[in-house]
Amino acid sequence: MTTQEVAELVGGEVCGDATALIRKVAKIEEAGEGDLSFLSNPRYEKFITSTNATAVLVSRSFDEKRAGLRKGLTFIKVVDPYIAFLQVLKTLTPIPDPFASGVDETAVVSESAVLGSDVALGAHVVIGKGVRIGSGTKIGPGCVIGDGASVGDGCRLYPNVTVYHGCQVGNNVILHAGSVIGSDGFGFAPKPDGTYEKIPQLGIVVIEDNVEIGANSTIDRATMGQTTIKKGVKLDNLVHIAHNVTVGEDTVIAAQTGISGSTKVGKNVIIAGQVGIVGHIEISDKTVLLAQSGISKSTEAGKTYFGYPAKEHMRALKIEAVIRSLPEFARDVEELKKSVEVLKNRLAEKRS
Amino acid sequence: MTTQEVAELVGGEVCGDATALIRKVAKIEEAGEGDLSFLSNPRYEKFITSTNATAVLVSRSFDEKRAGLRKGLTFIKVVDPYIAFLQVLKTLTPIPDPFASGVDETAVVSESAVLGSDVALGAHVVIGKGVRIGSGTKIGPGCVIGDGASVGDGCRLYPNVTVYHGCQVGNNVILHAGSVIGSDGFGFAPKPDGTYEKIPQLGIVVIEDNVEIGANSTIDRATMGQTTIKKGVKLDNLVHIAHNVTVGEDTVIAAQTGISGSTKVGKNVIIAGQVGIVGHIEISDKTVLLAQSGISKSTEAGKTYFGYPAKEHMRALKIEAVIRSLPEFARDVEELKKSVEVLKNRLAEKRS
Amino acid sequence: MTTQEVAELVGGEVCGDATALIRKVAKIEEAGEGDLSFLSNPRYEKFITSTNATAVLVSRSFDEKRAGLRKGLTFIKVVDPYIAFLQVLKTLTPIPDPFASGVDETAVVSESAVLGSDVALGAHVVIGKGVRIGSGTKIGPGCVIGDGASVGDGCRLYPNVTVYHGCQVGNNVILHAGSVIGSDGFGFAPKPDGTYEKIPQLGIVVIEDNVEIGANSTIDRATMGQTTIKKGVKLDNLVHIAHNVTVGEDTVIAAQTGISGSTKVGKNVIIAGQVGIVGHIEISDKTVLLAQSGISKSTEAGKTYFGYPAKEHMRALKIEAVIRSLPEFARDVEELKKSVEVLKNRLAEKRS
Repeated sequence: MTTQEVAELVGGEVCGDATALIRKVAKIEEAGEGDLSFLSNPRYEKFITSTNATAVLVSRSFDEKRAGLRKGLTFIKVVDPYIAFLQVLKTLTPIPDPFASGVDETAVVSESAVLGSDVALGAHVVIGKGVRIGSGTKIGPGCVIGDGASVGDGCRLYPNVTVYHGCQVGNNVILHAGSVIGSDGFGFAPKPDGTYEKIPQLGIVVIEDNVEIGANSTIDRATMGQTTIKKGVKLDNLVHIAHNVTVGEDTVIAAQTGISGSTKVGKNVIIAGQVGIVGHIEISDKTVLLAQSGISKSTEAGKTYFGYPAKEHMRALKIEAVIRSLPEFARDVEELKKSVEVLKNRLAEKRS
Repeated sequence: MTTQEVAELVGGEVCGDATALIRKVAKIEEAGEGDLSFLSNPRYEKFITSTNATAVLVSRSFDEKRAGLRKGLTFIKVVDPYIAFLQVLKTLTPIPDPFASGVDETAVVSESAVLGSDVALGAHVVIGKGVRIGSGTKIGPGCVIGDGASVGDGCRLYPNVTVYHGCQVGNNVILHAGSVIGSDGFGFAPKPDGTYEKIPQLGIVVIEDNVEIGANSTIDRATMGQTTIKKGVKLDNLVHIAHNVTVGEDTVIAAQTGISGSTKVGKNVIIAGQVGIVGHIEISDKTVLLAQSGISKSTEAGKTYFGYPAKEHMRALKIEAVIRSLPEFARDVEELKKSVEVLKNRLAEKRS
Repeated sequence: MTTQEVAELVGGEVCGDATALIRKVAKIEEAGEGDLSFLSNPRYEKFITSTNATAVLVSRSFDEKRAGLRKGLTFIKVVDPYIAFLQVLKTLTPIPDPFASGVDETAVVSESAVLGSDVALGAHVVIGKGVRIGSGTKIGPGCVIGDGASVGDGCRLYPNVTVYHGCQVGNNVILHAGSVIGSDGFGFAPKPDGTYEKIPQLGIVVIEDNVEIGANSTIDRATMGQTTIKKGVKLDNLVHIAHNVTVGEDTVIAAQTGISGSTKVGKNVIIAGQVGIVGHIEISDKTVLLAQSGISKSTEAGKTYFGYPAKEHMRALKIEAVIRSLPEFARDVEELKKSVEVLKNRLAEKRS
C-alpha cells in the first residue's frame, strides 16, 4: 500500500513521497521503515523528530516544515489522525477471529430455540427454551443463554458468559468472558425480626445495539420493568450495574465502577474507573465523572466532577490545594492565635 | 382477587370498596385500573393524589380522608405496606423458574456423590467426589462443585458458579452466576530474596442457611479453620470476602465491597457499596458503613460511619462542611494574617 | 515428629524438650498438646503466656526465660518463625489435590493442540487450535483455552477460567476460578457524531512463571504488543489489569485494585486493596500503595503513599490529623476574626 493509497483510504493529503510503501502500522516511538504511524496525543509530540517511520498521519494543522524533522519522512494530513490510523490498521492487519464456526456437537440447544443463519456455538454452550439467536452471532465455549432470552445479529459472546432468562441483547453486541447479564437485583425488605425478605426480581435486562461489556462485569435485572443499557454504551471490566438502572447512549464506563439501583445515566457521559454512584439520581448528558469519585447527587449536564463526596471539578481542585497545605495552614492559625493574644495583652497594658 | 381478599392475605383493613378487583401489582406512579400499589417511601408520597391504581397498601397511620385523594381510590391499611405488597406480588405474579428439572445427560456426576430427591443439575454441571447435594436443590449449567463439598436443601445455583473442594453451603442458599466459593486466601510469606512463599490454604468456606451471594462475588477459603457466612447474610455482586472472615447473621453487603482477612463482621450490619475494611478488626452488630468508606479500626455497635478514613457519620458531616468551604477559609486566614500584621505595626507606631 | 526433628527441618535450635512429639500445627491461641505453633506478629505476643501448644517457633532474639511462660513449653528458635512454620505445615499436613488426573472424556481438545506429559483436563474443558499445555499442568472443569494460547508446566487452573486466544501463561502459574486472561483492552476512539469506534486489540497477555491470579480477576490483552505480568507476581481476587500494563517481578496486589492502561508497575511493589492507578505512569520498585489510594502520578522508589488523591504517607497522616479537627479549627478561625475585629475597634477608639 502506498502512502497515496493510504491517503485515499482515509481522505487525507500526502506531504512528501506519495509512492512510499507502507507494510504495517506501529507506535511512533517503535516504528521503522515501511511503517505508518500517527501523531495525536501531544505527549507523543517529542517522538516526531526521532521516529523511523516511513510515514506519519498528522492533523491538518501540522507544520511539515518545522525544524528537526527527518528528511524523507512523509506526512499524511487528516482531520483525525487516530481514527485514520485505525482505518489503516484494520485494512493492513488481519484481525484474528477466535470463534469457531458452526454448532459444536457438545452444545446443548433447546428444541424450541431459534437460531439465525451462520450462528456459531462453541463447545458446551447451553441455549435455553425459546431463545432466539440472530444471524452471524458467535457464542464462545461455556456460555449459557437462559430460557426466553434473545441475542441479536452479529454479536460476539466470549467464553463463560451467562445471560439469565428473559434478557434481551441487541445487535453487534460484544460480551466479554465471565460477564453476567440479568442476575437478581439486590432487593430485600427488612422484617421486624431483623431478617430480610427477598423481593422477587421480575424484570429483565435490555442491552441495545453496538454495546460492549467487559470481562466479569455484572448487570442486574430490574425488580419490575427493565434495566437498560442503551445503544453504543461501552463498559469496561468488573463494572456493576444495579437493578432498574438506565445507561444512556454512547456512555463509556471504566473498570470497577458501580451504579446503584434506579439511577439514570444520560448519554455521552464519561465515567472513569472505580466511581460509585448512589441510587435514584440522574447523571445528566455529557457529564464527566473522574476516577474514584463518590456521586451522591444528580449532576448538571456537561460538568466534570471529582472527589469523595464529589464536587464540581474546578472547585475540587481548589479544595485539594488547601488540603495539601493544611499542616502549614494549621501552624499559621496557631501563630495567629498567639499573635492576637500578644496584641490583646499589649492593648490591655496600655489601658491599665 | 378482591381488595377484601388482599386484606385477608396480608392482615390488613379495607378503607373503601372491599369488592374492587385486583388483577396485578404495579408501582404507584405507573399503576392503572385493576392494579394494587403501595406507599412506603416518603419520596413517593407525591404520587398518592395522582395515582390511577384501584387500591393502595398504606400504613395504619395513613389518613384516608386527607385532601386531594381521588374519589373511589381504595386503601388497605397494614403494618408494613412494602412487606404486604411483596406478599400480594408473590400470590398474583407467577415467578418464572429458570431452572430445568432432572439431571441433564451432559452433567458429570461422581459415583461417590450423593444427590437428594428432586435435585436438578443443568447441562455440563460437574459434581466432584463425595459431594452431597440436598433435596430440591437446583444447579444451573456450567456449575462446578469440588470434591468433598456439600450443598444443602432448596438451594439455587445459577450458571457457572464454582464451589471449591470441601466447602459447605447450607439450605435455601442462592448463589448467582459466576460467584466463586472457596478460592485460596491471599496468603504469601515474603522471603529474604524478595520472592514470596505461598501459604497453603487448608481451611474451607462455610455458608449457612438463607444466604444469597451476588454475581461474580468471591469468598476465599480460610488458611486454617473456616471463612464463615452466617445465616441470612445477603451479598451483592462483585463483593470480596477474604480468608478467615466471619460475616454475622442477617448482615447485608452492597456491591464491590471488600473485607480483608480475619475481620469479624457482626450481625445486622449494613455495609454500602465499595466499602473497604482492613483485616483483623471487628465490625460490631448493627453498625452501618456508608458507601466507599475505608474502615481501618473496629467499630462501635449501632453507630454509622463514613469517609476515607472513616469517621463517625455526624462528625464526618461536620468535617465535610468545613472541607467544602476550605478555599474561603484559607482566604480568611490570609486576611487575618494581614490584619494582625497591620495591628502589630500600629501598636508599634504608638509605642515609638 | 519430635521437636528436634522439627528444628533440623527448619534450621532451628531447641530450647526445652527436644523429644517432645509434634503431631500437627495450630494457631497459638488455639493450639493444644502435640501442636506446634509460631510467634511472628507482635499482635499475638499476648498469647505466648497462655498457649497450650507443645512447642512454639520463635525468633532467635526471643527470651525463653522471660516471666509468665508455662513450664514445659518448648521453643524452637529460627530466623523467620512464620516461614519455618509453613515448612512444618507442608511436611505434617497433607494438602489435598482438588484436581482429577487424566483427560476427562467430556473435554474438547483440538487436534492441533499439544499436551505435555501428565496433563489433567477436567470435565468440559475446551482446548483450542494450536494450544500448548506443559507437563504436569492441571486444568479444572469448564476452563477454556483459546486458539494459539499456551500454558506452561506445573500450572493449576481452577474451574471456569478463560484464557483468550494467543495469550501465554508461564510455568507453575495458578489461575483461580473465573479469572479472565486476555479480554480486549478498553479502547475506543470518539467519533464526531458522539459514538465510539472500537480500537482493535491485537496484542496479547504474557504471564511469567510462578504467578498467582485470584478468582474473577481480569487481565486485558494489549492494543499492540503485550500486557505483562512478570514472574512471581501475586494478584488477589477481582483485580483489574488494563491493556499494555506491565506488573514487575514479585509485586503483590490485593483485592479489587485496578490499574489503568499502559502503566508500568515496578518490582517488589506492594499494593493494598481497592487502589486505583491511572494510566501511563510508573510505579517505582518497592513502592507501597495503601488501601483505597488514588494514584495519579508516578511514584518514587521505596516510598509509601496513601490517600485520594494519594500523598506521601507521612504527609498524608499529618494532613489527616488536621482534617480530623477541622470543625474546631474552623471555630478557632471564627473566634480569631472576632478578636481581630475587637482589637481593630479598640485601636480605632484610642486613635479617635
